[in-house]
Amino acid sequence: MAAATLHTPASTDEAQILALVDAVRQAHHDRSPEGMAAPYAPHAVIYDLEPPLAHDGISVDRKRRWLETWDGPLGLLAQDFKIAISGAHAFGHGYLRLSGAKKGHKDDVGHPVSFWMRATMVFARIDGAWRIVHEHTSVPFYMDGSLRPAFDLQP
Amino acid sequence: MAAATLHTPASTDEAQILALVDAVRQAHHDRSPEGMAAPYAPHAVIYDLEPPLAHDGISVDRKRRWLETWDGPLGLLAQDFKIAISGAHAFGHGYLRLSGAKKGHKDDVGHPVSFWMRATMVFARIDGAWRIVHEHTSVPFYMDGSLRPAFDLQP
Repeated sequence: MAAATLHTPASTDEAQILALVDAVRQAHHDRSPEGMAAPYAPHAVIYDLEPPLAHDGISVDRKRRWLETWDGPLGLLAQDFKIAISGAHAFGHGYLRLSGAKKGHKDDVGHPVSFWMRATMVFARIDGAWRIVHEHTSVPFYMDGSLRPAFDLQP
Repeated sequence: MAAATLHTPASTDEAQILALVDAVRQAHHDRSPEGMAAPYAPHAVIYDLEPPLAHDGISVDRKRRWLETWDGPLGLLAQDFKIAISGAHAFGHGYLRLSGAKKGHKDDVGHPVSFWMRATMVFARIDGAWRIVHEHTSVPFYMDGSLRPAFDLQP
């Protein structure tokens, strides 16, 4: 979600919403589990890349454990992100490219990983501040018998 | 999305929105590609289970080809579907269980398939009628090295 890929905010609300998305990016770069959780409302409904089907809110501990499976800073680049605001709710969808060095099972040397996912986010203005109340990220899978995740797709 | 699993609509708008979701279910049962497309706005942004990353609207021809890979009626059961309406937009998320008999590669006898997916939908009131403007469905995958889709999860 590099600033250059986000379009110019049309309103203060949109600027505040895009700042949440950028805060998630920054927290990945900084490897901050607290920063990764801060933009989300308590009990935000999270549909993540991996099981279970849903998470009830963002767990700082879970984010910390996930960060420990990576070496160094993580990249999270947003592209074609579109936001629609309607009253005290907003929704957005677009693409996120996650990149970093994933630690192997047998050594601590991370191997490079980079793939695009789809992301849908719903935002709500709660006590005057926008928060993420729902997030759905996914990678489609090939229905060619292999059922492998389509990590090779480009927006 | 059997009626029994949908909660009692709190408003006319919610009833109309849930009717769209039920129309998608009915069209799966009836194997009607036109019925599967009707609840969607033109150029609805669709993040589907299989590649590509996104589809620009629902293609009746694509739905027809997909239906031809199944024998008999398809089931689409909704569970824990929650709708929030805000002005002329609404969003919903919950679980859908797709079930049917998938044709094999070597014969025409379908083998039973049944799995739960996550679904996020965004709706807009366009010229007085609610339509689906964004849909994101996915199955998470196991990050245990297998990368297999988690078809065995239960809501």
